[in-house]
Amino acid sequence: MRLQAPNPIKLRSKLLGGEKPLICVPLASVDEVSILTEIDEVINMKPDVIEWRADYFESILDVSKVKNILEIIRSKNESIPIIFTCRSHDEGGYRNIDDETRLKLFTDVVDTGFIDVMDVELAFGNERIEKIKSLAIQKDVKLILSYHSFTDTPSENFIVEKIKEQIKNGADISKIAVMPKDQGDVLKLLNATYRARKEISNPIIGISMGPIGSITRLTAFVFGSDMTFAAGVNASAPGQLPIEVMRKYIDTII
Amino acid sequence: MRLQAPNPIKLRSKLLGGEKPLICVPLASVDEVSILTEIDEVINMKPDVIEWRADYFESILDVSKVKNILEIIRSKNESIPIIFTCRSHDEGGYRNIDDETRLKLFTDVVDTGFIDVMDVELAFGNERIEKIKSLAIQKDVKLILSYHSFTDTPSENFIVEKIKEQIKNGADISKIAVMPKDQGDVLKLLNATYRARKEISNPIIGISMGPIGSITRLTAFVFGSDMTFAAGVNASAPGQLPIEVMRKYIDTII
Repeated sequence: MRLQAPNPIKLRSKLLGGEKPLICVPLASVDEVSILTEIDEVINMKPDVIEWRADYFESILDVSKVKNILEIIRSKNESIPIIFTCRSHDEGGYRNIDDETRLKLFTDVVDTGFIDVMDVELAFGNERIEKIKSLAIQKDVKLILSYHSFTDTPSENFIVEKIKEQIKNGADISKIAVMPKDQGDVLKLLNATYRARKEISNPIIGISMGPIGSITRLTAFVFGSDMTFAAGVNASAPGQLPIEVMRKYIDTII
Repeated sequence: MRLQAPNPIKLRSKLLGGEKPLICVPLASVDEVSILTEIDEVINMKPDVIEWRADYFESILDVSKVKNILEIIRSKNESIPIIFTCRSHDEGGYRNIDDETRLKLFTDVVDTGFIDVMDVELAFGNERIEKIKSLAIQKDVKLILSYHSFTDTPSENFIVEKIKEQIKNGADISKIAVMPKDQGDVLKLLNATYRARKEISNPIIGISMGPIGSITRLTAFVFGSDMTFAAGVNASAPGQLPIEVMRKYIDTII
C-alpha cells in the first residue's frame, strides 16, 4: 500500500503517481552503435519508462543524430514513455556543455515530438526553464525539475521547500536525488518525501543514492515517491538495482 | 548496508544484531499432530530463528506436553535458535491464561534448557519479569521484553522511551510492534527504531504491522532493527511476507 499522487500524470500507457510506482530504466551508451543495441536490451527488460541519459552520448552536440536516436527509440515501442535528460558535469552528468547550447538542445528535442518528459535541473535557471516550459506545453511534453546533491543530504525542511520551489517554477514532476552519509540521512529523504506528498498534488520522485540509500529505490514509493530507477545495461547512478528484483518486490508490497 | 547493534548477541549459530538481520519464522499450530508437521515444514524453510507461538497450542497448560514439543524442535535442528512466546489475549495472543499460570509456564520452559530466547510483554510486570530473568541468566536464555499495540502507533518519543524502559527492566533484546493508520505512522516506527539504535547497544526488533506496515519487515533492518518475521505455514501476525522473498531481498540490499 502506497501514498499515491492526488494528481497523477498519464504518460502514454502508464500512470505516474497511480497505484504502482513506475520503474524507469536508463539508456547511457556513449556511441551510436552501442546505443542501438542498448535500446533493444532495455526494451526487453519491459521498463515502465525509459530515460535517455543523453549526456553520455558522444554525438550529443549533433542535433540531427540526437533526433535520429529518439526517433529510433520511439519507433521501437509506442507505449513506453521517454524521458530526455542531459546533465552537465556540475549536475552529476557525464560531460560539460555550456548552458546556452543545452538550452538550444532542450528546445530542439522537445520540438521533435518524440519525447514525453524533459528533465531539467532547477538550478538551470528560471528564464531558461520558462522557455523550455512554454514549448513543452505546446508539444504536450511534461517537465521534471530536479535537484541533485552528490555530496550530502540537506535537511528535511530544505528538501520539502525545494520540492515546492520546483512545482512553483513549472515542474509537472518534482525530482530529488541526494547522497546520504548515514541511515539518518536516508530517513530524512523519506520523511521529506512523505511531508511533500501531503502538501503537493503533482508526482514526486525521491531518491537517496549510493549503497546506504539503495533501500529508498524499493521503499520511497510507499511514502509518496512515484518513480524508481532500476539499473539498465549501464547503471547511470550509484545504488541502482536490477529491474526484475524491483518488479517482484513492488508486486509483493503493493 | 545496515545499522548493526553495538552489542550483538550470539544465538547458537546465528548473530542477532550483526551484518544481516535474522529472519524468524513462527510455529503456530493448535494441536500436537499439526505442530509436528509444521516443525518439519518450518525447518525446511531454513529460517535463522524459530519462534514457537505457544499460545496457539491447545495443550499449553500441560507442561509435560509443552516440554515434549520443545524437545522435538530442539532435536530436529541443533543450530536454529528457538524463541518461546505465549501471549495472552490482551497482548494480542490467541488464548487467555492468567498471569500466575503463565509465570509458572515461563519459568518451567526456561528451566528445560531447550529454548534460547523467552519473549515476555513488558506489561507483564517488573516482579514477574525479574523472576524469569534471574532463572534465564542461570540457563543462558536471553530475554525479549516486548511492547505491542494492535490499535495504533504511539509517538516517536514514546517508542524510544519504551525501548529504553525494556532494556532498563532486563531485556537483552527489545521488541516493538505497532499498528499504523497511515504511512506517517510507519515512518514514526522507523525513525524511533533509528533513534533508539543510536542510544541503545542491545539488539532491537521494530515492526509496523498490517498491510501499510509490511514494508518495515523489509526495511526496518536498515535502520537498526535486528530481526524480521516471515510468514510460516501459518502467519502469526498481519503483514508477514514469504521467507524466500525476504531472503532474496535482504541479500540484494545488504
